[in-house]
Amino acid sequence: MEAFQKYLQNFPNFTPQVMEEVKPHLIKRQLNKGEYFLREGKICRSIAFIEQGLFRIYYLQDGREITHCFCKEHHLSAAYSSFITQSPSSTSIQALEDSQLLLLPYALLQDLYAQNPFWQQVGRMAAEQEYLVAESHQRFLSDLSAQERYQQILTNDPTLLQRVPLNYLASYLQITPETLSRIRNKISRT
Amino acid sequence: MEAFQKYLQNFPNFTPQVMEEVKPHLIKRQLNKGEYFLREGKICRSIAFIEQGLFRIYYLQDGREITHCFCKEHHLSAAYSSFITQSPSSTSIQALEDSQLLLLPYALLQDLYAQNPFWQQVGRMAAEQEYLVAESHQRFLSDLSAQERYQQILTNDPTLLQRVPLNYLASYLQITPETLSRIRNKISRT
Repeated sequence: MEAFQKYLQNFPNFTPQVMEEVKPHLIKRQLNKGEYFLREGKICRSIAFIEQGLFRIYYLQDGREITHCFCKEHHLSAAYSSFITQSPSSTSIQALEDSQLLLLPYALLQDLYAQNPFWQQVGRMAAEQEYLVAESHQRFLSDLSAQERYQQILTNDPTLLQRVPLNYLASYLQITPETLSRIRNKISRT
Repeated sequence: MEAFQKYLQNFPNFTPQVMEEVKPHLIKRQLNKGEYFLREGKICRSIAFIEQGLFRIYYLQDGREITHCFCKEHHLSAAYSSFITQSPSSTSIQALEDSQLLLLPYALLQDLYAQNPFWQQVGRMAAEQEYLVAESHQRFLSDLSAQERYQQILTNDPTLLQRVPLNYLASYLQITPETLSRIRNKISRT
């Protein structure tokens, strides 16, 4: 609960009252490594705040799983477009580690929006953030070489490289596991 | 002004009061065909509501202009990530027709957010919409063939095809003008 409070404190106009408002309605959930938070075709009915653990979000393209992103502790995670529109998701979300979550159901969020402008503001700023992440991911894929992509993760989030299985990392970088091995060997020699 | 009021009426909890709040602060602007709303490297300091006209948003890749999207009357337009972060834009925005705009400056929007939760809600829902458009554009490019992309526009927004010069349309579809001509000939024969 403490990590979620810290997350909320990042937003302007936070007061302890907003935490009291939401606390009784949050749903605690545990997922074991390998279990699914959401499967493709289902509607994403909650946003998860990850207290502990790691998710991957992926979609299928020509039968292959393409990892779209990794979400780790102290961040929100959802199939965002499915959550916004309350329509079936084209992505699946799987726990890559034993994970501990706080769930904010869709209906709860609508109530919070109506109760207190603070929550509208959280919703707005979180949506803006999601937009920036989506745009920067598009650039990550279109403007950088495979090696530059790997190096960007190595610089920004080196521990992720120890936590994510290589085949998922390769799929996220949109390269084969063999190319990923070559890049890692090349970088470790320099 | 009427079109902007109609746009706002689409949001829940609209009251005539919110229109009165914002009206005195909106800035009217005319752009002639070919003029720029924003140039790459500048900070996007306003969101434009297009009362009349048409914009293209583009970025440079290896010296070539890639059209990212078209924005037409009765929609908002901005270099959205530059606007959110108030940092230099990687895109340019140019009027493709004589255009009439209402500008919402960044500082005005921050004031409105603080004054009335309605505006936080508009900001949230507009940001969610931008996210959905960005995701669907990514799919448009990655999942559809060139012909399917052209046909999607032909179905969803046929008048756009008459309003946009062919070279910009080809760049938006990420094909050469020659391929676009072949697709158009093929479709007009069927």
